[in-house]
Amino acid sequence: MVNSNRVDHYSGSVHANQEHAATAPVPAPVSGVTMTSLAVHSVCLPPQKSTLQKLRHRLSEVFFPDDPLHGFKNQSRFRKLILALQFFFPIFEWAPNYSFTLLRSDVVSGLTIASLAIPQGISYAKLANLPPIIGLYSSFVPPLIYSVLGSSKHLAVGPVSIASLVMGTMLTEAIPDNQNPILYLKLAFTATFFAGVFQATLGLLRLGFVIDFLSKATLLGFMGGAAVIVSLQQLKGLLGITHFTTSMQLIPVLSSTIQHRNEWSWQTYVMGFCFLTFLLTTRHVGMRKPKLFWVSAAAPLVSVVLSTLLVTLFKSKLHGIATIGHLEKGLNPPSSNMLYFHGHFLGVALKTGIITGILSLTEGIAVGRTFASLNDYQVDGNKEMIAIGVMNMAGSCSSCYVTTGSFSRSAVNTNAGAKTVVSNIIMASTVLVTLLFLMPLFYYTPNLILAAIIITAVIGLIDYQSAIRLWKVDKLDFVACLSSFFGVLMISVPMGLAIAVGVSVFKILLHVTRPNTCVLGNIPGTQIYQNVSRYREAKRVPYFVILGIESPIYFANSTYLQERILRWIREEEEWLAVNNVSSLKCVIIDMTAVTGIDTSGLAMVKELKKMLEKRSLQLVLANPGGSVMEKLHTSNILESFGLEGLYLTVDEAVVDISSAWKA
Amino acid sequence: MVNSNRVDHYSGSVHANQEHAATAPVPAPVSGVTMTSLAVHSVCLPPQKSTLQKLRHRLSEVFFPDDPLHGFKNQSRFRKLILALQFFFPIFEWAPNYSFTLLRSDVVSGLTIASLAIPQGISYAKLANLPPIIGLYSSFVPPLIYSVLGSSKHLAVGPVSIASLVMGTMLTEAIPDNQNPILYLKLAFTATFFAGVFQATLGLLRLGFVIDFLSKATLLGFMGGAAVIVSLQQLKGLLGITHFTTSMQLIPVLSSTIQHRNEWSWQTYVMGFCFLTFLLTTRHVGMRKPKLFWVSAAAPLVSVVLSTLLVTLFKSKLHGIATIGHLEKGLNPPSSNMLYFHGHFLGVALKTGIITGILSLTEGIAVGRTFASLNDYQVDGNKEMIAIGVMNMAGSCSSCYVTTGSFSRSAVNTNAGAKTVVSNIIMASTVLVTLLFLMPLFYYTPNLILAAIIITAVIGLIDYQSAIRLWKVDKLDFVACLSSFFGVLMISVPMGLAIAVGVSVFKILLHVTRPNTCVLGNIPGTQIYQNVSRYREAKRVPYFVILGIESPIYFANSTYLQERILRWIREEEEWLAVNNVSSLKCVIIDMTAVTGIDTSGLAMVKELKKMLEKRSLQLVLANPGGSVMEKLHTSNILESFGLEGLYLTVDEAVVDISSAWKA
Repeated sequence: MVNSNRVDHYSGSVHANQEHAATAPVPAPVSGVTMTSLAVHSVCLPPQKSTLQKLRHRLSEVFFPDDPLHGFKNQSRFRKLILALQFFFPIFEWAPNYSFTLLRSDVVSGLTIASLAIPQGISYAKLANLPPIIGLYSSFVPPLIYSVLGSSKHLAVGPVSIASLVMGTMLTEAIPDNQNPILYLKLAFTATFFAGVFQATLGLLRLGFVIDFLSKATLLGFMGGAAVIVSLQQLKGLLGITHFTTSMQLIPVLSSTIQHRNEWSWQTYVMGFCFLTFLLTTRHVGMRKPKLFWVSAAAPLVSVVLSTLLVTLFKSKLHGIATIGHLEKGLNPPSSNMLYFHGHFLGVALKTGIITGILSLTEGIAVGRTFASLNDYQVDGNKEMIAIGVMNMAGSCSSCYVTTGSFSRSAVNTNAGAKTVVSNIIMASTVLVTLLFLMPLFYYTPNLILAAIIITAVIGLIDYQSAIRLWKVDKLDFVACLSSFFGVLMISVPMGLAIAVGVSVFKILLHVTRPNTCVLGNIPGTQIYQNVSRYREAKRVPYFVILGIESPIYFANSTYLQERILRWIREEEEWLAVNNVSSLKCVIIDMTAVTGIDTSGLAMVKELKKMLEKRSLQLVLANPGGSVMEKLHTSNILESFGLEGLYLTVDEAVVDISSAWKA
Repeated sequence: MVNSNRVDHYSGSVHANQEHAATAPVPAPVSGVTMTSLAVHSVCLPPQKSTLQKLRHRLSEVFFPDDPLHGFKNQSRFRKLILALQFFFPIFEWAPNYSFTLLRSDVVSGLTIASLAIPQGISYAKLANLPPIIGLYSSFVPPLIYSVLGSSKHLAVGPVSIASLVMGTMLTEAIPDNQNPILYLKLAFTATFFAGVFQATLGLLRLGFVIDFLSKATLLGFMGGAAVIVSLQQLKGLLGITHFTTSMQLIPVLSSTIQHRNEWSWQTYVMGFCFLTFLLTTRHVGMRKPKLFWVSAAAPLVSVVLSTLLVTLFKSKLHGIATIGHLEKGLNPPSSNMLYFHGHFLGVALKTGIITGILSLTEGIAVGRTFASLNDYQVDGNKEMIAIGVMNMAGSCSSCYVTTGSFSRSAVNTNAGAKTVVSNIIMASTVLVTLLFLMPLFYYTPNLILAAIIITAVIGLIDYQSAIRLWKVDKLDFVACLSSFFGVLMISVPMGLAIAVGVSVFKILLHVTRPNTCVLGNIPGTQIYQNVSRYREAKRVPYFVILGIESPIYFANSTYLQERILRWIREEEEWLAVNNVSSLKCVIIDMTAVTGIDTSGLAMVKELKKMLEKRSLQLVLANPGGSVMEKLHTSNILESFGLEGLYLTVDEAVVDISSAWKA
């Protein structure tokens, strides 16, 4: 489409720009109105297209805004094949140029994130009420698959806190208190499978924009709320409580903590809070001095090792402390036989899959985009979705639960100098070694250390400073943030999300339902017309009311706009009557910001014209956009406006109409 | 707010308009770029306001767009009292000037609509599965209340088809086959009460815009679907079937008609189709020749009288024909003791009340607005809502079910010359006489005539011509129309409505999620920049890409817009590379149509600026609106743009930047 105009792409140039300033004759003011020789430009209809062409254009804008196949144009067949391979498997893009230097960086960063991934993996599995070893399994297969399919160079893949939390909550509601651990595990794998299918489908159908509806403000509140809940839930491990509520709301968790005061074990909480302090301190150091990132990266592993040593050495004295216990050695067992496709709990698995799927997708894509833009490359959202989806589908068949790109580990990965996705392969290999040989070492690892690691990981999600910034910049975004925060905290995770999305959509609807309208005035000495309440130099033009409408005219606002326009006219007329000034003759509506119109809007314009005609006021439209012009044309409303009712700019309308009055 | 600018309201005037054309020196083209003395205008922030002031302004725009109290300003206290009385009870406005001439017109039109209201009232009550007499009761009390509170002069109040249908469907689902007629009646009155409360509340809280979300296209489809279902359901009465389905979907109704073939009574369907033909013919005559409106207005009463006479005279031979039977003489009995505020069915009553409430409100307001605009006066939507709501609340306590303004009867009312709402009082008095003295006359009125009257009344709702017009003008409106049509026909009334509202909202979201972007070019010899694919004379400017964005920048589209803008730039650079032309230096974004921005949008702008800077491209914003400027300012993004990144118009940006390059 653009190319059709390229024949004479540049045949005009800037110096044609102001020529009329030189060639226009000196205006002769005729009693207040200037006559100029400035030609009046007619308003064009957009180039004619059939319904099919329009639909194609529309669909390509909806699904292929980034024109993903533009690289394939004008290439030989063989080249196209190579490009297609690279398109679907980004590994073919970077592997041929992979070098020893890159490998060295990747090994360092891979080992660093492994030292973080192993304790976090065990902790997050606990968060999802799954056996700890599932967390390690999930840090092995998915990173390998991502390294083949993923297009981000810095994403560190594995289990993450939010998805683990949500899966834990939703499944525990269905099967409380782990009454049936096998069924629970089945549901977790099935939910992971559905999450993967959902993610890959979104990517394949190029519906990536669905995740955009979780706006940053919404996610901020949601994550903050989830982090508060998760941290409070860790009081179970930190205090050594054995009978804890499985509920996820603020009130039950707090009351459960206090009710079971008699179960608090002093050995557990003394040791727990010591390590928590250590972890929080190292985290603070890592954040303050980015060069010391390895301090915070190594701290969890150090804590695990230290606490395990302590418990092993003082076994007899620290018997009150709960430990992880026996973990099976060996690789991920296949789990495709555990997927659960019929029966009572299928709905739960499906719902859990979709919600954890969308949350982990949002996190993975956002993290990938953040680090890509920091390092000057771009990730393709839809391709990432397919990669993450396939990774989860494969994961569900190899005893993994939902995984995605983790923000904290990706940051460490970037800081440690990761250059390609090979760091994920190194990490997976380290986990492999752990799975095969090091499992017995975790026998005496205390649960309290997992609780401390989880708290340290999620506490950063409570980002009150960003919330304050939201309040300063955009009150409605702040409301969306607050409602998702309290929704998650007080009601439930799905409801919190639903409320937040509802608030975000409501915001868009409010913008359309009650759009801004304003009176425009001329800035003396120019052809510019601006809002008179904003530009003090902009002056109203006698005999005219010039109104700007700042939204499409739709069913949701056509009644409002009609009332509002009539009120602007009424106020102007009242002012004129009180001040005994010239009467009103013409209403100009600046349609520049009216980006669309529907049948209700068209009816409103028609009706408005009729009403103003009865009051002998002329209605003029200035600069209607392409789709608006087209609809005015097909609905035959354009005819009633004629040549004197349609101008390309407000200025041309004012000049031409005033000179017509004088003539 | 506007008034603050009125001090120097008009101190500029049109002839200042083009002065720069005369005073600007002759431009000296310096290698392709023109230098002019045109002053560059700075972009203003909107006047500073506190959060509270902004909130007040916003709330007044949302709830009081029509400034309903403007008449009260600068009036004496006594005058304000009178105005308030007239405001709440419009009867005080017209009653003092009521004359004998007006009364004569109103009596004629009142009697005319009464002749229509009595048979329709009985029929619609049948449609709602209520005793026929409830339809007459509902044509007596509500019109009297409306005549005191209502602001429309032409609305004829009473039961209407759509609300009757919906109430019948929803209550029959809860209590099938009239198993418990007393409970059914209780629920109907309770639903009416809730409908009234809901309507009055919407009016009092000035939430009238809620009904705007049922767009014209949606209603067109909904009414068409409902009319098809209602017409098919009347086959029961027309064919004389005794065991008919209570289901409301297309398939069960059709199959039930065929299944019960053995119950068809030939006397019934011969007589039924004769009268139906008569009614449809008179309707056609009335529509073709508006002067003969009385033909169609009188036809229902004539049919009732004729058919009753026939059945009475040939009683013995026509025993297969079902008749209305005994109707109690007397006025509306009080029914406040029948309202049902606790127990199992409260939810059903509430839901039915809200849905019938919103539907009848939409119809009443639309009819009121239509006839007001035809007769050059305005109705206040929120006041009408209160009137209709109070009328239904009072109705529910006097044995009436949901009533509102009926389109067909209001049209007859207008044609018959109604001048004020007194015609409703005349109609109510006629119904009073009927209730007190004429009830025995209906004993032998056959049910088939009621079915024929209903079909004649609803058949006009199937407006396929408007649907074709929708297809021509706006495809998405057509989709909304079709989905509500099939939703009602195939699923259920509430689902049909929900789907249609969903489609309408989706349309707004789609417009925001995938907004239009275009490349702008200069129209030679002017300062105008327009879409190059629409205006063939518009030429691109070398070294610049000028992009127009036609929507607010929100979370739902910030990712898309970023990708799309980068694609425009990439395409331009590719073209330049292929053609070996001057390289790209500056990207100007015309923000005229960007009517809002949120925190995600701000982050996008910041990120885009950073990305372009890394590629040594300058990013310039032209004409950002008030709220956008304010947010750019409070989020500190404005600083990074500085003076060279912000211009009032695209033209000033192009001229100023090119001259800076040359300097």
